[in-house]
Amino acid sequence: MTLVSFIGSGNVAWHLAPALDNTDFAVREVYSRNPAHASALVDKLYEAEVKATLDFSTSNSHVFIIAVSDDAVESVVQEIILPENAILVHTSGSLPLDVLRYAATPDIGVFYPLQTFSKSKKVDFKEVPLFIESENTETEKILISMAKAISKHVHKISSQERKAMHVAAVFASNFTNHMLTVSQEIMKENKLSFDWLKPLIAETVNKSLTIGPENAQTGPARRGDFETLDKHMEFLQQDESVAELYKVISQHIVDKYHS
Amino acid sequence: MTLVSFIGSGNVAWHLAPALDNTDFAVREVYSRNPAHASALVDKLYEAEVKATLDFSTSNSHVFIIAVSDDAVESVVQEIILPENAILVHTSGSLPLDVLRYAATPDIGVFYPLQTFSKSKKVDFKEVPLFIESENTETEKILISMAKAISKHVHKISSQERKAMHVAAVFASNFTNHMLTVSQEIMKENKLSFDWLKPLIAETVNKSLTIGPENAQTGPARRGDFETLDKHMEFLQQDESVAELYKVISQHIVDKYHS
Repeated sequence: MTLVSFIGSGNVAWHLAPALDNTDFAVREVYSRNPAHASALVDKLYEAEVKATLDFSTSNSHVFIIAVSDDAVESVVQEIILPENAILVHTSGSLPLDVLRYAATPDIGVFYPLQTFSKSKKVDFKEVPLFIESENTETEKILISMAKAISKHVHKISSQERKAMHVAAVFASNFTNHMLTVSQEIMKENKLSFDWLKPLIAETVNKSLTIGPENAQTGPARRGDFETLDKHMEFLQQDESVAELYKVISQHIVDKYHS
Repeated sequence: MTLVSFIGSGNVAWHLAPALDNTDFAVREVYSRNPAHASALVDKLYEAEVKATLDFSTSNSHVFIIAVSDDAVESVVQEIILPENAILVHTSGSLPLDVLRYAATPDIGVFYPLQTFSKSKKVDFKEVPLFIESENTETEKILISMAKAISKHVHKISSQERKAMHVAAVFASNFTNHMLTVSQEIMKENKLSFDWLKPLIAETVNKSLTIGPENAQTGPARRGDFETLDKHMEFLQQDESVAELYKVISQHIVDKYHS
């Protein structure tokens, strides 16, 4: 049994800690700047306790998982006090391994789950791809076995590759979702039901993942139908920022398929 | 039994004609500028024949469905010769009912299936929302019964509403799919597998449709994490047009959630 402590109780910790707790990597401590949040997460775990400070010098844990927002990682690294032989990892898609370099342990690594997490939505961790990085072979071995305990999809990846993948993930997830938000707003403004678009959205993504997004592309920009593009721009003229989105994305599609 | 003729054999006709052919609205004729395309569609139908010209004066059909690209609709309307009492409809999301006004029949309407169609991908028409417009009560009745014969989701909608919905659909479907294309390109350029992103993409859309896209929004722009946004912009600097997409969409998210 390997004992684990979490620093952070946000969306990633909220799903990752309970997933680990069901395996040989039991979670024993949760620290959060907001103790109420730590307490809510501890309630989902078997034997974990809320940790009030970042002083883990007397902790029995072997793996310490930093799951805080990117801009808070550095201050955690500066403040945290670890026991001997501790492994320290972060879970960020965009931060390099190097941000952990100044921690008082040589055993550092990255444990990055590539998924979108919200507290209100359950996730099947078995299907979440996990990306591992470490320069230390022994640490890497432990992180990989920890990853394999909760997911079927475990990959080794470098900081540089992870950064590229994170940018790609922003397009694939965050921007895709924002397109749906804009779409919902247009429907709402025109007193139309967003539900009417749901079969289209589900089929779009289903098709894209089946035959590949390039083969799946349709619509006025893909057809080079400039008359419709002009009409849509005219329709959107009352909302300058949405019109700009429409223009820039359509232009990018036109340039890709018609030049 | 109501007989139906198709003008056009593209993506919409490819799925709509066979769906109707299984109901009391049997398809008997298919016209296409490219007779080989018409012939391929006819092969999927029970008793239909390829029609060589737009002269339907001796046709036994009652409903004529124009399913050609938006910019070709007008010339079809000018050329087509219809039998007496014919109903003429188009299937476009963005064209008003008015484009059919100059046809030699007063019985005009719109029959718009809101879905993304590609010949290579099967579609369950029962789940495709169909939007009907007609100023003639009798015509509307026939179009609604034709729609209900193939789909569980039939709605009446005006030209203006349909236009708004089409713009929303471009965001929801075409732009969403293009985000996946850009994401795939970034993965490819960095020799990473696009497959790794697929669980993220599936979950993003699943979550968005379950809890609503605004509640589902995550990522650096949503968090107002400008350090990561800057790093991503720097990463994308070798591809100006992708960097512009990243910037404009991120800015739109930041403005929405942080101002």
